[in-house]
Amino acid sequence: MKYELLKTEKKSRARLGRVITNYGIFETPMFMPVGTKATVKSLTPEELKEMHCGIILANTYHLWLRPGPDLIQKAGGLHAFMHYDGPILTDSGGFQVFSLAKNKKDIVEEGVYFKSHLDGQKLLLTPEKSIEIQNKLDSDIAMSFDECPPASAGYDYLKNSVERTLRWAERGKKVHQNERQALFGIVQGGAYEDLRKFSAEETVKMGFDGYSIGGVANDGESKEDMYKAIDYSIPYLPQDKVRYLMGIGDPIDLIEGVIRGVDIFDCVLPTRIARHGQAFTRTGKINFHNAKYKEDFTPIEEDCDCYTCKNYTRAYLRHLITTEEMLGGRLLSIHNIRFLVKLMEELREAIQNDTILEYREKFIEKYGTSKK
Amino acid sequence: MKYELLKTEKKSRARLGRVITNYGIFETPMFMPVGTKATVKSLTPEELKEMHCGIILANTYHLWLRPGPDLIQKAGGLHAFMHYDGPILTDSGGFQVFSLAKNKKDIVEEGVYFKSHLDGQKLLLTPEKSIEIQNKLDSDIAMSFDECPPASAGYDYLKNSVERTLRWAERGKKVHQNERQALFGIVQGGAYEDLRKFSAEETVKMGFDGYSIGGVANDGESKEDMYKAIDYSIPYLPQDKVRYLMGIGDPIDLIEGVIRGVDIFDCVLPTRIARHGQAFTRTGKINFHNAKYKEDFTPIEEDCDCYTCKNYTRAYLRHLITTEEMLGGRLLSIHNIRFLVKLMEELREAIQNDTILEYREKFIEKYGTSKK
Repeated sequence: MKYELLKTEKKSRARLGRVITNYGIFETPMFMPVGTKATVKSLTPEELKEMHCGIILANTYHLWLRPGPDLIQKAGGLHAFMHYDGPILTDSGGFQVFSLAKNKKDIVEEGVYFKSHLDGQKLLLTPEKSIEIQNKLDSDIAMSFDECPPASAGYDYLKNSVERTLRWAERGKKVHQNERQALFGIVQGGAYEDLRKFSAEETVKMGFDGYSIGGVANDGESKEDMYKAIDYSIPYLPQDKVRYLMGIGDPIDLIEGVIRGVDIFDCVLPTRIARHGQAFTRTGKINFHNAKYKEDFTPIEEDCDCYTCKNYTRAYLRHLITTEEMLGGRLLSIHNIRFLVKLMEELREAIQNDTILEYREKFIEKYGTSKK
Repeated sequence: MKYELLKTEKKSRARLGRVITNYGIFETPMFMPVGTKATVKSLTPEELKEMHCGIILANTYHLWLRPGPDLIQKAGGLHAFMHYDGPILTDSGGFQVFSLAKNKKDIVEEGVYFKSHLDGQKLLLTPEKSIEIQNKLDSDIAMSFDECPPASAGYDYLKNSVERTLRWAERGKKVHQNERQALFGIVQGGAYEDLRKFSAEETVKMGFDGYSIGGVANDGESKEDMYKAIDYSIPYLPQDKVRYLMGIGDPIDLIEGVIRGVDIFDCVLPTRIARHGQAFTRTGKINFHNAKYKEDFTPIEEDCDCYTCKNYTRAYLRHLITTEEMLGGRLLSIHNIRFLVKLMEELREAIQNDTILEYREKFIEKYGTSKK
């Protein structure tokens, strides 16, 4: 994997770039849809390509439990297994272990003991194990195993956690064996400037193929803290490596992240809200459970180029959503992913034209704040 | 709508034909996938066309309750509402009223009083109401409203029921006003030769655009009785009108129906079993919950031309099904519908070659009997 920085915007830290992988090239900034269990829920790879998705994410934790990395390796890796020949990034499993696993987890130096969210089975995930699984999955980009403490964890806890995450990153790097696969380091440290600086500098010293900013999608994290986390990390990351803000998908947050120098993002938001009947629009999210769309024979957005907007009315989408038809979630997923990918295209254009701050202003004027 | 009989097979009653509608031409024999609530579950119209589906069915009962015929009329009819520009047949709502509606129904001369399966609301469906709804839905083919008594109803009940269904057919025909829409009559009479003959002759006297054989997909109906019902009805139906066997989708039954002179069929079977993890194959149905497919990296069928078989392995499909991913049901639906549509293509070829009895023999040799 190779990252090429093409341009930095004049009035911000926003960057235009290009990522070259064995499975294709994509431009940054880019949004990654999440294919949790080796499928972006309800969609085919062909549909993702039609939406111009440059890269997708798959979850190591879920694939570890089912169907297991050995099976996927036997299938010829994740690309062959899920019939997707574009770039794939896998997370480390850390976030899921900390957020999904049942009951309490036991964080020790070796790794994390926890119970499977499926059957309560006691499991241990370590930095080495995470990398071993990702090596077998054969994704294009693997992530280091990190601790994801809650926003409520105090300074002292976070300081220890940042140090442990550095030791874990070192251990993971040592066992990383898949030469076709890039490995990213993760910057942690909450909203504390000195911790973020320390975490970023030490992680960069180890020399990874790219860098993530973690700990911004945890329970209870405020918008303000998220922006701080980015601002406190970015200055210490090298210009010639890609930067990835983990777990963020709100349109305003994506714009703010890009302005602050982030290149790639992932989030379940567009597909999750789709299944709950919500769609992004330029004037904010709309909810198809709302009766006002009952006789609305216009598309979600008149000027959207997605398959859903070109062919279906809000009235039909509302019918599918309220009668719990699978096609509803599928069609809204197509629109919502395309909305975020298109947003990224517009941000790339704004970077090219050095107009990203004006773009943000105009976008927020119509969309409202991210709390809407 | 117009039906053209192209050829009758030499050794059976099997017919090759062509149906011409305002929304396109399709060849018969043909299988119709069911789009209950104006959507063939999980699939798009483009996918249905790629599978060479000639016509689909939508359910009047479900669309009456949600979103309602007035809304669909405002949308420009069912084709525009669901973005499907091929032929659509709507049923009368009768079957659902008899099989789905909660609690007891009250069958009177006027129609059927019953409670909505959604909210228990008391409703009345009459022959006039059914036609009025279908006129508004603007399907290409509408069905007469008939009574669907259970297989266990005795001769006397069925005799009265057949007579009532004739009176209902007459009433529906009188109010049918959509000139672009064909109207079919329905032959009832259980497995009784004299009742089927009477029902068929009297229905034909009224002069419909096509004829259905009903009462064969009811609870408790045996295979033997189904074949009898067909054999006792077909001789009294005109050669120049299309014949439709309602609610049948088992591959062997389709072959038997075609051999007996049926032209079109519908059934939820291919999509329903898909959502439950089952797929048709030439050697019988397979169930992806079965562990033996865990490491099976072959397609469902090597020589199948469907999107699923061209791109996905059994191992991946099993993973999607066992982890309850929506894409699983979608991919199996594609295969199962294509399987039945392809079966019809082969039956048309066999009719052309006067080899349909040999085709049946060879098919059953591999597939087994329909009870498998």
